[in-house]
This record gives sequence, structure tokens and C-alpha cells, in this order.
Amino acid sequence: MATRRLICLEEYEEEARSILDRNTWGYYSPGAIAEYTLRDNLQAFNRYSIFPRVLVDVSLIDMSVRLLGDTIDMPIGISPTAMQCLAHPDGEKATARAAARMGTCLTLSSWSTTSIEEVAEHNGSHSLRWFQLYVYKDNNLTIDLVRRAEREGFKALVVTVDTPESGTRFPEKRNKFYLPPHLKLANFSDRDSTSLLISWGISLLFWDGIDWLRSITRLPIVLKGILRADDAREAMKHDIQGILVSNHGARQLDTVPAAIDALSGIVEAVKGSNIEVYLDSGIRHGTDVFKALALGARCVFIGRPVLWGLAVNGEEGVCEVLSILREEFRQAMVLSGTPNISSITKDLVMHRSHAKL
Amino acid sequence: MATRRLICLEEYEEEARSILDRNTWGYYSPGAIAEYTLRDNLQAFNRYSIFPRVLVDVSLIDMSVRLLGDTIDMPIGISPTAMQCLAHPDGEKATARAAARMGTCLTLSSWSTTSIEEVAEHNGSHSLRWFQLYVYKDNNLTIDLVRRAEREGFKALVVTVDTPESGTRFPEKRNKFYLPPHLKLANFSDRDSTSLLISWGISLLFWDGIDWLRSITRLPIVLKGILRADDAREAMKHDIQGILVSNHGARQLDTVPAAIDALSGIVEAVKGSNIEVYLDSGIRHGTDVFKALALGARCVFIGRPVLWGLAVNGEEGVCEVLSILREEFRQAMVLSGTPNISSITKDLVMHRSHAKL
Amino acid sequence: MATRRLICLEEYEEEARSILDRNTWGYYSPGAIAEYTLRDNLQAFNRYSIFPRVLVDVSLIDMSVRLLGDTIDMPIGISPTAMQCLAHPDGEKATARAAARMGTCLTLSSWSTTSIEEVAEHNGSHSLRWFQLYVYKDNNLTIDLVRRAEREGFKALVVTVDTPESGTRFPEKRNKFYLPPHLKLANFSDRDSTSLLISWGISLLFWDGIDWLRSITRLPIVLKGILRADDAREAMKHDIQGILVSNHGARQLDTVPAAIDALSGIVEAVKGSNIEVYLDSGIRHGTDVFKALALGARCVFIGRPVLWGLAVNGEEGVCEVLSILREEFRQAMVLSGTPNISSITKDLVMHRSHAKL
Amino acid sequence: MATRRLICLEEYEEEARSILDRNTWGYYSPGAIAEYTLRDNLQAFNRYSIFPRVLVDVSLIDMSVRLLGDTIDMPIGISPTAMQCLAHPDGEKATARAAARMGTCLTLSSWSTTSIEEVAEHNGSHSLRWFQLYVYKDNNLTIDLVRRAEREGFKALVVTVDTPESGTRFPEKRNKFYLPPHLKLANFSDRDSTSLLISWGISLLFWDGIDWLRSITRLPIVLKGILRADDAREAMKHDIQGILVSNHGARQLDTVPAAIDALSGIVEAVKGSNIEVYLDSGIRHGTDVFKALALGARCVFIGRPVLWGLAVNGEEGVCEVLSILREEFRQAMVLSGTPNISSITKDLVMHRSHAKL
Ligand SMILES: Cc1cc2nc3c(=O)[nH]c(=O)nc-3n(C[C@H](O)[C@H](O)[C@H](O)COP(=O)(O)O)c2cc1C
Ligand SMILES: Cc1cc2nc3c(=O)[nH]c(=O)nc-3n(C[C@H](O)[C@H](O)[C@H](O)COP(=O)(O)O)c2cc1C
Ligand SMILES: Cc1cc2nc3c(=O)[nH]c(=O)nc-3n(C[C@H](O)[C@H](O)[C@H](O)COP(=O)(O)O)c2cc1C
Ligand SMILES: Cc1cc2nc3c(=O)[nH]c(=O)nc-3n(C[C@H](O)[C@H](O)[C@H](O)COP(=O)(O)O)c2cc1C
Repeated sequence: MATRRLICLEEYEEEARSILDRNTWGYYSPGAIAEYTLRDNLQAFNRYSIFPRVLVDVSLIDMSVRLLGDTIDMPIGISPTAMQCLAHPDGEKATARAAARMGTCLTLSSWSTTSIEEVAEHNGSHSLRWFQLYVYKDNNLTIDLVRRAEREGFKALVVTVDTPESGTRFPEKRNKFYLPPHLKLANFSDRDSTSLLISWGISLLFWDGIDWLRSITRLPIVLKGILRADDAREAMKHDIQGILVSNHGARQLDTVPAAIDALSGIVEAVKGSNIEVYLDSGIRHGTDVFKALALGARCVFIGRPVLWGLAVNGEEGVCEVLSILREEFRQAMVLSGTPNISSITKDLVMHRSHAKL
Repeated sequence: MATRRLICLEEYEEEARSILDRNTWGYYSPGAIAEYTLRDNLQAFNRYSIFPRVLVDVSLIDMSVRLLGDTIDMPIGISPTAMQCLAHPDGEKATARAAARMGTCLTLSSWSTTSIEEVAEHNGSHSLRWFQLYVYKDNNLTIDLVRRAEREGFKALVVTVDTPESGTRFPEKRNKFYLPPHLKLANFSDRDSTSLLISWGISLLFWDGIDWLRSITRLPIVLKGILRADDAREAMKHDIQGILVSNHGARQLDTVPAAIDALSGIVEAVKGSNIEVYLDSGIRHGTDVFKALALGARCVFIGRPVLWGLAVNGEEGVCEVLSILREEFRQAMVLSGTPNISSITKDLVMHRSHAKL
Repeated sequence: MATRRLICLEEYEEEARSILDRNTWGYYSPGAIAEYTLRDNLQAFNRYSIFPRVLVDVSLIDMSVRLLGDTIDMPIGISPTAMQCLAHPDGEKATARAAARMGTCLTLSSWSTTSIEEVAEHNGSHSLRWFQLYVYKDNNLTIDLVRRAEREGFKALVVTVDTPESGTRFPEKRNKFYLPPHLKLANFSDRDSTSLLISWGISLLFWDGIDWLRSITRLPIVLKGILRADDAREAMKHDIQGILVSNHGARQLDTVPAAIDALSGIVEAVKGSNIEVYLDSGIRHGTDVFKALALGARCVFIGRPVLWGLAVNGEEGVCEVLSILREEFRQAMVLSGTPNISSITKDLVMHRSHAKL
Repeated sequence: MATRRLICLEEYEEEARSILDRNTWGYYSPGAIAEYTLRDNLQAFNRYSIFPRVLVDVSLIDMSVRLLGDTIDMPIGISPTAMQCLAHPDGEKATARAAARMGTCLTLSSWSTTSIEEVAEHNGSHSLRWFQLYVYKDNNLTIDLVRRAEREGFKALVVTVDTPESGTRFPEKRNKFYLPPHLKLANFSDRDSTSLLISWGISLLFWDGIDWLRSITRLPIVLKGILRADDAREAMKHDIQGILVSNHGARQLDTVPAAIDALSGIVEAVKGSNIEVYLDSGIRHGTDVFKALALGARCVFIGRPVLWGLAVNGEEGVCEVLSILREEFRQAMVLSGTPNISSITKDLVMHRSHAKL
């Protein structure tokens, strides 16, 4: 495979940039406004040092983790990203097959260009898949999505809470981003779709909306986009099962903290509860995964890197991207003396400003 | 309108730079000496992170604020900048009309190229306007300006206290900045004007000058340019109504703190009093406005961005600049879960060096 | 000698880069993954300031130090680097002769392209040499190496503990680094060599492996690659004699701390014991040596700079590189008022973040 | 005068660089080794913010200060720099006349290319001049210099203590810096001069050398080059009158602290004594002067900027450089509300890391 020459996620990014058209790249790549947080999402990881442990038996590395009761092969899942057919004709189908092959968790965006049903089929019956949900004003619309996700074997609902409206990304505005006519938001009727959805706004979702959602489904609920400790504490009152610490890949509000900088506050807030904490936003290297886990995340997720893999090489490309990250993470475990996930403890990572010098 | 393609204040700056002549740009753009504070005014905002609150009802956003008893539609006012006819033939008239249309507070510079009376007429009878005052050695000159401002419906006197003399800006010096012959300082007789004013120096204003001013007018007094907490405490003894925390857009003394870094000290100093605190210097994005308000400012003001709007598109351009900032600020409110100004509390913003990591 | 025009280590680096082929340079120069720690290894030294003492008698500078009982002329030794014949046909022989001429300690890599016996011969009978050891699964292989080192007058075993497997360096991967056919790993039979060694993995070494090694030899043992204080405390239980604080020149796990930043923690951990602490990784200037000593290292070692010297000018080049560093260090002693090594105390160096300003 | 177009010290630097030959520029401009401290000397000032006071009477600005009993017109003196005839044929004579015209203190280097006697003549009978002294092994050489300085009306001896040998500056080495044959070290006999001095080393000066010097002259003694608080405390035991906090313009040991960062420690150490504290190294702007004074220096001195002025325009150029700095400092006083030197108190300046945000 030609793309095997690409050896890190940054190279996939460069390659994808050269392949994708302006309209698509202007939608996939940017962060909000001045992109301060976009840069910070990456740089923040460097502000944490790993202090590796030596002379530990690392001959057998076990990367598997349990997410809400299901085991996956590595703590690197796929975040929901909308409209993947912009990246490659196989779009969400390719991603679903890649997730299955790599033994990890797929999160499907509500705004996919492939239907829930088709994605489930391509992901297969043995794979772990979650469904990302925006809760709409029209309850029936939401109920319909939930029922279909349940029916198609999605194991959790990832409710995105940082998007009362879409953030401002200049390239999108400059290009007047549009979904090309041959693609559509495949989970909605034409009536509800695109223009409707967008103009109508995404949601008016409050805590009682979470309670309502809880009342209509038994699926575990993961809140995606919490950055404040007090919001995490509030979440503990609402029978939710997970929190995905995320700033939406820096696409919503500029100058919010890097996800990794917000993580410890959330982990501490829910300590003692059963809520699982995950993280996305800015994961590009195995050491990033390692640091997030050391600071208390159970699993990380990646957004854009999957789109780069798709663009470069479809299903294969997504597998390659996940393989690179898995291999880098495996090596971080080996070189840090941590043969399994539970040995990745907090004392292995220190914020540079805390170093005793 | 062609300029609708400009989508952020930085683009207005670039466009203005390409339109204005060297003499004008060399007066509008620079900061003092090595421009350390000029850069810091912008960068400092990035050192504060917003921790957005989620799952709050933000369907109705109310941006209105009361300034000294008058309500305006958004907490983004216009700082006084001298000689606006350099930017556009309509100069202060255009700005006055734009402020009225946008429902915000106009502060007119003493050194305007349009007279107090004309500006009032173009601003209209329903708009909030303040008059910026330098207090001159010659009491009669000052009294005359105050009386005219009172008569023309200006609702406060903004006394600039950071300008015992004009700061040093190298481009001004290199260009030997001059007011072109077809323009004049419209609030002064020819005798008092330009060369006179400049050579004669601006003022010798001390605290007893403030008391004198207090004694001759009932208009509220706002001190513009305070950066020290002890000066703010002193101000509390002198029956003044507002403090505009400002470093004059970094045009006076280089290496003074960014306005946003000085804000908290002032807010704390006047706590318990009725003094309102505002901020200008370096506001370029909606998140900057949000942070200033979270840290205790009641309203922010902008200087140069108005000049860029004027240069690019006259009255329309000023409206566009204000609209962009209002829209960015509205979105910051939506995405932070703060439907009105009083919900923008201090805990939503944290200095990066204070983050608990 | 033409190369006398090169006046600092950075110039040797530039010259070596222009001389060596892509395959060799791609092996010698890189750090792991994104090379964050590679850069940090150098920059970290600048974060420590020297506060020089004045009016001290520095007419006689004594740079000699004792390492595990043997005295060398300066506290700047040579770290083990593999395959030196890639840099120059004389390879390890040249380095061995240079170390002898400069009166310093040579550490020979297990993976040398010259045999233990030949190196000993060129190093001579009066010089201090140590042997770097990877401990292999196959005990006989290890025992064989230890016996040969003992027989050839090596005075300590430097056991590298940060390399359960080799780190990832992108240039090596891109170039598919190979040892050219005319060279071989000279300490191993052909059967055991290159491909074997590499595929087979380096080692599975735990603390009990250290005890085993202790049981088969009386040579002092130095653990190379410890960065954690708790690992240093563990080491105190295992009858080892030295710790070389090192991140392997940033070649193993990216984003580990700079060696100099990890030093104080280790020094404090072993205080009170007889364990000697050394440092390598990033030493490029005399002030770097000075700071490491002030913070508690007994001696520093250099890796890449020796390779640069070799590439530029063989034995002479290695002498030149060591001479430059010795001369810079001597001057740092003179200008800091420290005539001998024991006068280089902790109070002479302060981390910038601790400065009382 | 053509050079009046140059409006800040940085422009004099650029102009001088274009005028001077490689040999001279390679001697004047560099800092030691990697020039970390050279850059830090300038940047450090930016890490201190001025918090200006407003509404103070600054109509009369008094910049005069007393140095060891003599009054000068401004707290900006001239540091000793060797061999000024390299910059301009008039060399030290021009500098001496400029110092007199500007009413400030001249410090003459021992290694001047103009004799003590000639410099005194050009400086005139009403000016304050100090003599910089290296103390030589040969007491007679030192005594001779002291007697001549006394006789010629120099009012203090500035004993440089940071130069047991000359630092390493790469451009000097690359150019093999030499004093051109038409110039000579004018205070020494040919026998003692250049090569002699240089090879012979500068000095072996300890605290008892200071006592000896004290015993042979009644002139006040200023120690130049102290950076440590304990050295300052030691100095208090030796009947010296002043300390010039300096890192020799970053020319001696690289990575020592910026002078301004060392100042507070020294000021605090000598508090309660009569020792006056001064500062040089990195002063380029009026705000730098202001900060040094706020942090406790009585006066600052400049080294390289005088050489730039000399190179650009001889005596006039030196006056211009001093005038620019004086004018910038005057303005800093005006804009900070400090009409005289004693009002420049510590609370006006804050290190950025101490800011209460
Ligand atoms: C092009 C794009 C589309 C996205 N669409 C969605 C979406 O539909 N729903 C959602 O919750 N998050 C969406 N996200 C956010 C991602 O789920 C994820 O939080 C983010 O991409 C993580 O940051 P990373 O890209 O740095 O890995 C999208 C992100 C991108 C880049
Ligand atoms: C060209 C220009 C002219 C100004 N004229 C005045 C003035 O006449 N009176 C005054 O108080 N401030 C004046 N200011 C300062 C502004 O009121 C305001 O404090 C500053 O521009 C805010 O910073 P900003 O430009 O970054 O928004 C002027 C600023 C500029 C850029
Ligand atoms: C090309 C190269 C080969 C190396 N080979 C070995 C080795 O065989 N054994 C070992 O313990 N360390 C090895 N190292 C690490 C060095 O011993 C040393 O820790 C490192 O180079 C110090 O950092 P510096 O290069 O910045 O001085 C090697 C380093 C380099 C650059
Ligand atoms: C070219 C040059 C020559 C110098 N010669 C001397 C000298 O002879 N004696 C001395 O005490 N300091 C000497 N100095 C140091 C200066 O006195 C002073 O400490 C330094 O220049 C201050 O830093 P600045 O150049 O940043 O102002 C010299 C500095 C330079 C740049």
C-alpha cells in the first residue's frame, strides 16, 4: 500500500490537505475564530512530562479497556465527525469497517452521510459502536434517532452538550461551506435535512432534557463536551454514565482550555461515582494517549485524524492512522514500564510547572 | 456591500492599512516606543481561558447593559479617537450615526475634526453619547467645552488622565505627522487649535482639578486611563462615577500592563462603591469582551477598530465592525451558557497560570 | 589542522551533517517521534542561571574528579554510542585513543563496530574505560561480554535500563537505516549479530536481572537511564554503584523531561548513599557541565558531540570536541569563582522560575 | 545634523553596524558563547511592568541624582568600554566631551586608546569622571594608574571584579581580533601594553586586594560586576562605597542572570549600609532606566550605545544617544507621575510573574 510510507499522523494531515478540495478542507481543518485553542490542544500535551519507570516486565503489553462494560482492544476510539463522505466515497462505511478491524469503538455522528442502518451493517455484529446525538426541539425527531440506534446495536448515546449552536470557523465562512448535491444527511428525511437543521438551530438542551432522554431509553448516556468541574458534579445528579472531556476539537468557542488541561478537574469532580471519563481534542501521538490515561481518562477518541486517514486511503487509511497511534501508544507503555492500562498511574506524568527543580 | 467579505476585525485592519496614507496610518496604528504593550494588549487576553457552562437555556440572549443609568444594546462602546476625518471624509459624523444605529455609546474625542454640535446632531436625540475631555490650563477653555457638551446632550465627561503629555510613537515621528490643511480641530478656535494645543501641552491636571471639574458640572465623570489600584482608591474620594481601565491603546508609556491584566486590581479596589468600571485597549474578539466582563468590567470600548471600519466603509464600516464584535460576543455568551450580562461571572474565566492542572 | 577553525560544538555538528551520508545522519541525529525532548534537552540548561562568585583565587583550576575510585582529568566523559565506524573508518579506535589523550573516561557501547579487545588496546593501559551493557535473554551472551570486559580492563559496567526496545526515530524509519555490509557489530558472532539482535529485541531486564548481574561480576554497576526518584530509591536496594541520569539523548520516549530537569530529584533520592550520580543528554557547553555539577552530578558524559568530532576529523576531531568543552568548562569555573570541583555548589545555580525578583 | 533622523538606540546600533569594520564590530557587539544572556539582558526588562500613577503634578521634572556626593543631571552614566578609537578617530576624547556637555558621569576604561590625562582635559574641570581599574599582579602598575587618576580629578575607582579573565566571544575568535597598529592602549608603556597585558592575564584579585587598594587611596571604590547577594554582603565588610550590578554586557559568562534580575537581591543585601547601587547591561530605553531606579539602583550606565553613537557621529553621536535616552526617561517620569528621582518607588514596577491577576 503506497501510503505505508506515511509514518505519523502529521504526514496524513499533510497528504489529506493536498487531496481534499477547498470546501471540504475548510470544513474539516479549522478551529474557532483565531484558533488559539486549536494550537493549544496540541501544545498542551507537551507541557506534561512523562517520567518513565524502568526495569519492569513489559514483555506482554495489554492495551485492552472496558468502556461501559464492553471491552475494546485499545483505549483509542473514534470521535463522531459529520459528513465523512466528503473525505472519501466510502465515508462512514469505511470508518465503520476500519473500527471493526481495529477492535475499537466507533462513534457515529448524527449528521452522517451514511444512514445508521448502513453503518451498523458495515461495522458488524461484534463491534462496539456508539451513537452521537443532538437532542432536537422536536421530540419525535430525537426519539426516532434513539430507537434506530438501539435497534441497530449502538451501545451508548453520546450527547453533545457544547453545541447550542455551531461555532464560527473562518474558512467555512469564506468558502460558504456547502454539502455537495450528491451527498445528504442520511439520518434525516429531506424535509428535516440540511438547510432545515442548520437554520432551525441545533438544540435547546438543558439538564431536564437529559432527564427526558434518560426516561425514554436504557442506553448508557455519555455527555460530550464538558469542561467545568461544577458541570461534572451536576452531571452526577442525572444518571449519566460517561463524560467525554472535549472542546469539540477547538471548533466551538476559542480560548477555552485544551482538553488535557481540563481533564484533571473533571476526574476529581466525579471521583467516587461510576461515571467513566474519556477525552478527545488534540490527540496526535502515543504519548498524548498515555498522558490522558495517566491523568484519569479511561479512553481517548480522535476526530480529524480519522478524516485524514479516510481521505488518504479510505478504510485502509483509517486503519493505518489507528495503527500508528496504537503502535506509538504501545511503545509509550513499553518505555514507561506500564504493561497494562491500570499501571498507567498519575505519578508517571507531571505538569512542567509542577516539576521540583 | 463589498466589505461584507471581511469577516473579522483583523481583516478590517489589513484593509484599512492598504487604504490609508502613510501619514494617517503612522498616526493610527502604532503603540509607544518598542510597542511591547501594544502586542501584549492582544496576547494578554489569550492568557485567560473561558471555562464554558453547558446545558443552560440560551435561547434568548440579552446583551443590554446600563451605563450610568442609561441602557445600551450591547456592552461594546466606542472609545474616543482624535481626528476621524483622516480616516474618511464623513469622520465623526459617520461614527456618530453608526453608534446610534447599533444602539451603543459613542465617546467623542475633544480633538475631533467635527464639532460637538454636528456630532450630536448626527448621533440623534435617542442615543447615548459621552464627551472625552482634556482639562486645560485655561479654565475658560475647559468650561466652554463642558457647557457645549452639556447643551448637546452628552451624558458623561470622560476625563483622560494618562496623558500629561503625548506618548512617543516612532512612525508619527518619522512621518512628522501633521493634520492636513483641509481638516481642523473643530472644537477649538483657530487660535487655540493644533500647533497651539500641541506646543502648549495638554494639561496639568491633578486631583484638585477633578474636584474643580466636579464643582462646575453635574455630569457624571469617568476617569480614563487608571491602571493602579491605589489611584482607583483615591478616585473614590473624589465623587467620580466611572473608571475606564485603559492604557490608551498602548500609545502612552510602553511596558505598562495590558489593560485586561490591570482590570482585576481596579475592580477589587472600588468594590463596595458605586463606581462603574469599564475597559478598553486591545479588544478584538467577542471572547475578549466576555473576559473583560467576567473579570468585572461593565462595558468595553474600542478605539482603532472603529477607525478601520471608518476607513474601509465609512458609517457602514463602523456598523460592520461593531456587528462582527457583537455577533462574536453573542456567540461567546451562547457557547458559555450565559444568557445575560449578569450571568457572566468570574468563575467562567481563569488565568492560565492559576489553572489547577 | 584545518578543523581548528571550528570553535564550538554546534559548528562540529554542522560540519558533520555536511560530511555524513543520509543513512548515517538519519541514525545519529534524531530524537524520538516529534523531538520535543531533543529540543528540550538543550533549552532546559538555559532555564538555569549561574550566579557567579567574584574575588576568589582562581589562579589554579583543578578539574579532576574521581569516578568510582579512579581519577580523571575532567568531569566530561564519553557516553556509549553504537557503530562509530559509520562516522569515520577509525571509529571506536579513534575515540579510544582520544579519550586516553584527554585523560577522560571512555564508555564503550556493546554495539560497537570494533571489538572490546581492539578498543582496550587503543585506549591503553592507563586509561579509564567502562563497558556499556545490554542484558540479553540469553545469559551466556551477557556473561561472555562481561568476562571480556573484565579481562580487557574495563572498570565498570554501564547497564542501560531505558531501552526495553529501541525508540522510534522518523529519519531512521524513512531511510530504513542499515549497517553497511563492510561493518559489523564486532562484539557478537555473526549468528547473534544485527538482524538477530534487532529482531530478537534487546532485553527483558528487571530488577532481579540486576541482582543476577551483581552475582556474576565484581565490577561496579552503573544504571544508565534512570529519571524517576522512586527508581533511584529502588536502585539503592540493589548494590549498584552509580546512576547515569539520562534520557538516551531523547532517542527513546518523547516528552520525557530533559535530563538536567530530572537530576535534582535523583540526587536527593540517593543522598546519604554511596551511589554516584552522573548525567548525559544535551551537554553542549561548558556552562551545561557546570550546572549539572552544581546540581549534584559528579561527571557528565557526551554522546553525539563525539560522533561529530569523529566524522569531522577522526581521533583529532574527538580531541578537539573534548578540548572545546573542557576549555569552556574551565572558563566557567574561573568566571564563577570555583577553583575546583567541590567548590561548584548548589547555590551557584538557580532555576529561573525560582529567582527572587 | 544628518543623524538626527535616528530616533532610538536600536537605529544607532544598525547604523553603527553598517559603518564599522568586521574586526571592530566583532569586538563591540557580541556576548559570550551562545549569547543567551545577551538576549536576556534586553528581554528581562519587558518582564517588569510599570504601573503608572496619574493626576500628579509633573510640570517640573528633576532628573538629577547624587553619585558619591557629586550631582549629575540625569541618572544615566557612561560605562567603561575599552578602545574607543576603534569606533571613531576622536574616541575617548569625544566621549569625554559629550559626557561633559550632557552633565553626566564618565567612566573611563583602563584600556582606553587615549590617556588618562588627555581624557581629563577633554572632560573638563567641572565634570564628574570615574576611572575603571583592573588590579594587576604588579602592584606598581596599579599604583601608577591610581595616582594618575587621582591627579587628573577622577572621583572614584570602578574596580571590575567579573573579569579574572576575558570571556569567550565567538566573533572575536573568528576574526582574530587585533588592535590596529595605529592605536595603542594609551595608559601603559609599550612594554606593558597589548600582547603583554593580554597574555599575562588581567588580574588575580581577591578581597584582600580590595583592602590593599583601599589602603593606598582615599578615592571611593565601586565594585563592578557583582551579581550575588552574598558577595554584596561580603563587600559591606571591605569599606567600599558602591556596587555596579552588571554582567559586563553579557560578555563574560553566558547564562548568568540579566542584570535587572539580579538587582533586587543586591539592593536588599546592602540595605541599611551607605553603599550605593548602580546597574548596567542592557539599558536601551527610558523605561529600562525607570525600572532599574524603581528596583533600587541610584543610576544606570550604558556601554555599547555610547560606542554606536561614537561610530555614527563622534562626540555629537554620543550626545544624541544620551539625549534620546534622557528624553525617553523624562517621558517615563512624566507619564508615571514621578516628578523626581526619589518618587520613583518600588511599587511602580512589578515583575509580571508577581502580578495579581
Ligand atoms: C469535521 C468535524 C466534524 C465534526 N462533527 C461532529 C459531530 O457531528 N458531532 C460531534 O459531537 N462532534 C463533532 N466533531 C467533534 C469531534 O467529535 C471531536 O470532538 C474533535 O474532532 C476532537 O478533536 P480532534 O479533531 O483534535 O481529534 C467534529 C469535528 C470535526 C473536525
Ligand atoms: C488614533 C488614536 C487617537 C486617539 N485619540 C484619543 C483621544 O483623543 N482621547 C483619548 O482619551 N484617547 C484617545 N485614544 C485612545 C483611545 O481612546 C483608546 O483608549 C484606545 O484606542 C483603546 O485601544 P484599542 O485601539 O486597542 O481599542 C486614541 C487612540 C488612537 C488609536
Ligand atoms: C547514535 C547514537 C547511538 C547510541 N547508542 C547507544 C548505545 O549503544 N548504548 C547506550 O546505552 N546509549 C546509546 N546512545 C545514547 C548515549 O549513550 C547518550 O545517552 C546520549 O547520546 C546522550 O545525549 P547527547 O547525544 O545529547 O550527548 C546512543 C546515542 C546516539 C546518538
Ligand atoms: C566593547 C566593550 C568593551 C568593554 N570594555 C570594558 C572595560 O574595559 N572594562 C570594564 O569594566 N567593562 C568593559 N565593558 C563592559 C561595560 O563596562 C558594561 O558593563 C557593558 O557594556 C554594559 O552593557 P551594555 O553594553 O548592554 O550597556 C566593555 C563592554 C564592551 C561592549
